[in-house]
Amino acid sequence: MPVPIAEELAKKQQAISVAEFFEKNRQILGFDSAPRSLITTVKEALDNSLDACEEASILPDIMIQIRRLGKSGVSIVIEDNGPGIVREQIPNVFARLLYGSRFHSLKQSRGQQGIGISAAVLYSQLTSGHPTKILSKISPTSPAHYYELMVNTKTNEPEILHDDIIDWDRPHGTRIEMEMEATYVRGRRQSVEEYLKATAIVNPHARITLIDPDNNKTTFERVTDCIPEPAKEILPHPHGIELGTLMKMLRYTERQKLASFLRYSFSKIGLQTAEEICLASGLEPDTPPSELGREEARKLLDAFKKVKIMSPPTDCLSPIGEDLVYKGLNKEYKVDFIATASRTPSVFSGNPFVVEVGLAYGGDLPKDERVGIMRFANKVPLLYQQGGCVTTHAVESIKWKQYGLNQPGGGLPVAPAVLLVHVASTNVPFTSESKDAIADIPEIQSEVELALKEVGRKLNKYLKRQGSLKKRREKEVIITKVLPKMAEILAETLDKEVPDINPVVARVMGNLLVHRQVYPNSNGGLDVSLKVANYSSKKLDFRLHEILPEQVNASPEAKIVRMGSDNDHIWNISLPVGDTRVITYSTTSKTRLPDSIVEGVEEDIVTGAKAIKGL
Amino acid sequence: MPVPIAEELAKKQQAISVAEFFEKNRQILGFDSAPRSLITTVKEALDNSLDACEEASILPDIMIQIRRLGKSGVSIVIEDNGPGIVREQIPNVFARLLYGSRFHSLKQSRGQQGIGISAAVLYSQLTSGHPTKILSKISPTSPAHYYELMVNTKTNEPEILHDDIIDWDRPHGTRIEMEMEATYVRGRRQSVEEYLKATAIVNPHARITLIDPDNNKTTFERVTDCIPEPAKEILPHPHGIELGTLMKMLRYTERQKLASFLRYSFSKIGLQTAEEICLASGLEPDTPPSELGREEARKLLDAFKKVKIMSPPTDCLSPIGEDLVYKGLNKEYKVDFIATASRTPSVFSGNPFVVEVGLAYGGDLPKDERVGIMRFANKVPLLYQQGGCVTTHAVESIKWKQYGLNQPGGGLPVAPAVLLVHVASTNVPFTSESKDAIADIPEIQSEVELALKEVGRKLNKYLKRQGSLKKRREKEVIITKVLPKMAEILAETLDKEVPDINPVVARVMGNLLVHRQVYPNSNGGLDVSLKVANYSSKKLDFRLHEILPEQVNASPEAKIVRMGSDNDHIWNISLPVGDTRVITYSTTSKTRLPDSIVEGVEEDIVTGAKAIKGL
Repeated sequence: MPVPIAEELAKKQQAISVAEFFEKNRQILGFDSAPRSLITTVKEALDNSLDACEEASILPDIMIQIRRLGKSGVSIVIEDNGPGIVREQIPNVFARLLYGSRFHSLKQSRGQQGIGISAAVLYSQLTSGHPTKILSKISPTSPAHYYELMVNTKTNEPEILHDDIIDWDRPHGTRIEMEMEATYVRGRRQSVEEYLKATAIVNPHARITLIDPDNNKTTFERVTDCIPEPAKEILPHPHGIELGTLMKMLRYTERQKLASFLRYSFSKIGLQTAEEICLASGLEPDTPPSELGREEARKLLDAFKKVKIMSPPTDCLSPIGEDLVYKGLNKEYKVDFIATASRTPSVFSGNPFVVEVGLAYGGDLPKDERVGIMRFANKVPLLYQQGGCVTTHAVESIKWKQYGLNQPGGGLPVAPAVLLVHVASTNVPFTSESKDAIADIPEIQSEVELALKEVGRKLNKYLKRQGSLKKRREKEVIITKVLPKMAEILAETLDKEVPDINPVVARVMGNLLVHRQVYPNSNGGLDVSLKVANYSSKKLDFRLHEILPEQVNASPEAKIVRMGSDNDHIWNISLPVGDTRVITYSTTSKTRLPDSIVEGVEEDIVTGAKAIKGL
Repeated sequence: MPVPIAEELAKKQQAISVAEFFEKNRQILGFDSAPRSLITTVKEALDNSLDACEEASILPDIMIQIRRLGKSGVSIVIEDNGPGIVREQIPNVFARLLYGSRFHSLKQSRGQQGIGISAAVLYSQLTSGHPTKILSKISPTSPAHYYELMVNTKTNEPEILHDDIIDWDRPHGTRIEMEMEATYVRGRRQSVEEYLKATAIVNPHARITLIDPDNNKTTFERVTDCIPEPAKEILPHPHGIELGTLMKMLRYTERQKLASFLRYSFSKIGLQTAEEICLASGLEPDTPPSELGREEARKLLDAFKKVKIMSPPTDCLSPIGEDLVYKGLNKEYKVDFIATASRTPSVFSGNPFVVEVGLAYGGDLPKDERVGIMRFANKVPLLYQQGGCVTTHAVESIKWKQYGLNQPGGGLPVAPAVLLVHVASTNVPFTSESKDAIADIPEIQSEVELALKEVGRKLNKYLKRQGSLKKRREKEVIITKVLPKMAEILAETLDKEVPDINPVVARVMGNLLVHRQVYPNSNGGLDVSLKVANYSSKKLDFRLHEILPEQVNASPEAKIVRMGSDNDHIWNISLPVGDTRVITYSTTSKTRLPDSIVEGVEEDIVTGAKAIKGL
């Protein structure tokens, strides 16, 4: 009978505290295995320290110490030189989920959910039964506050087990100490050390010190003393704002008039734009926002689309920078080629975001494995859930064959390459609270794809050039081996002296030919004629050098530079395709002349002379 | 100066309502794109309906109607014949996140978070500004209650915009109607229709009707009337329980004595086991649990490991069943081969779970694409985040080459194959609230791998056999083409008649030979001698048939069955390896005799006769 059943079921209905929820679903927060739980804890603490230091314009100096406890436990200490946390906030910040300073502010930051560190506290108490110990100091003149905290999972409220004021030699900073079931692993990409390494790459202004369970001390030293420009907080941009959000804003604003509401609640809406929007929506600028309902909100949304509004400010973002992307890859891998690309900022549902990409190729990278991807979001390395990340999906969606990479069965290309992808935004849309992967937001995917195609094209150019050089060399080798033999045989049979086959080679190869012919003259010296012919497919501008013991009068005349005992005769030559120049001079020297030198033409298209980059 | 900064930052610190959190991070709930938002909404409503019907032992009859609204909106109606929801619960169930009946109960169910449907309500109001309309009735004799609801995101409390009692012809059930920004897509795996199809496969007792925006009506008819045995609720199992959880249980239990606490708070702990645990932990059975602190809890945990405790009950699980896995794959794909595997239940951190796997191969499946994976969790299809799912990671971790599949560059094998993986548990550890992917829990991954290896072995056997058959045929073709030619030539040169080369073929091929020799006899008929020789590598049991116009006396004697005008002469023959039988008879017929027939031996190892499966 259904009657009792509905009532039966009703008895079981009850509210679930967010702490209970995450206690049961801790894998959602990144606590699904012993090694990962440790990485997640370090990550969350580190994110907070770096964010706080950035906001306080402090050069971060962060110490992480991990000790083994028993067979399956660890103790973790994270200490920073940040601004510290005021006393009354400490319990909420560390022992209450969904509590924080960055959730409601529109700017790029590492933490944005108000869950991370309290999740670590939750996991710590769940697996060790111990409270977390917090020590924090906000200035040299104020005392350090010490707390022992737990999360009351039934209520998601902090439980203060101990509260004290103690001495701390630091001028300011925060120290966290907790115990948990976790394991410290080595030599994997998914390890604390690799995580810190990756963090250091994109945070070159931070000093991070790790003391591992075997007391090995590793310091990731800062490579610059300039603190990155802190990201600015912005107002929401009218584009892509949701109807419901707008209705809520209208309902809760303190502004009395629609026009000023628009002007002061959104970025890029000035006096004039506000009026245009009112006009376009057919709403009176003086209407109190509170009187505007669903229909009016809808009209405003349409007006946002009609009226021209500047795209959102980007000082709320703090990208890594192509330079650092390059350095990062170059430091991490021994490769032959690196390309980077950085897109101009874009927007998804009102949130500005920017994509940066790097590609490293060749060198020591394994040839028959799928390419590796280093993923970053708001300068935080993403180590897990690669397969679930929009960045990976973007890589997979690209036809890499057209850029010269193998892609058997689709998916990630198989090539000696590594990709670095960074997505920075005021609100990175992660697929879960563990912040491992970025959701498949179409706008983001297309930006990542465009950036990847850019580095793809650069790679393709590089590979093509490598390919053609290889071909050229093979071709030239054959020709320069075969032709001389033919020439010799010919010479023998015709009983003539062996002809110089350079001209032939040059013509066949499409090279720049420098053909020097030397005839003994009546003065006991040599008459020299230099023929320079451009058989290549492009106009060539270069300098021709003849190094001679004495200074000679050549025609055309040469610029002469003394070089020790020798004289460098220099001709600036600009030679259109197919053109030829002849230079003649006489020298007293009887010995074999040193090779002519061509400066400013790529080595592999020069025949009959030495090619150099520049003296 | 740090002082002001810490206080500056403190001003921004504030609590975040779970509704606000998910409003901002709706991608976490599966609302990241217009097509997906619709699928997620249907999914959440459908899960609830199926769960409720299962709990109420009702055969589900669920109707889903989707209409287009404007250019980017839809309206969705989901109506079921479930037990209904009692009036006072309706607002909380639909307009409050983290509220539900299944979160605290240990048994397999589709919904388990108390988020799903209220998330849809939240998304609906965010994008349409409209409330969600609920109609529910719990029995023929009670009235139907109508609500218009919104979620107050600042407080995560329901806002009741309208509340009424109306007539509804249904005896009981629930109807949900909402509007949202979303798109209905067709012909993709990630579509409402495909989702319903997949759901129907594993819920054969449900009737699901879809009316799409173009008014096309599709009904997924139930194929069975028996309702699956509803999963039983169990107590937590002592194995894998967390220290913190145990401490909480000790703190909040109503039991006065440790022994009875153990006995009535855990599954598989009886009177005796309870005492053994007390003994092993050195704790008095009479101690009040409330007096036991962290150290004692730790002792109990150790005792749980020492004392032998039966593995958890499995009636809390309701698997799909190998039979349905097979049918599901068979119905979905035209293939040559299907293998299934079902593991015995196992446990991760106290949660029982079971893994079922199916593999379909060949047929119409694309040969040069990566294998597809149909993923299910608690009988719910998983359409998104395949790359982030432990099931996928398990597939990728297996060396498929050893099972005969190609796996270029690692990752998913490239083969004409589809895998079906189902994970059922009292608590499926999803990577996020959108429940798209299962987290990398080591216990689960290893169970999935074991199941996959099982089907892998079966596949390998099949492929090997196919391979050898192919070889056999090629071999036979050659032989049966070459030998006859040789025979002819031989015959010509020796001027003899062409010999029957079947015996040679049979011997070379290792076949069953049926060699019939016919000599005209004095009565104007034919003397027939049948030689049957087993050149194969195994003993053969089969029936030999000779279809003759009349009944003959053969030696050994045959069983004769009339077939229309003919007579089927049947010999049951059991022939050890290398053995031979000779059958002789005389017939009056002068015309060519029909081929002999062998019944019960595979076609490809029979030479000189027709082979059939069974008359």
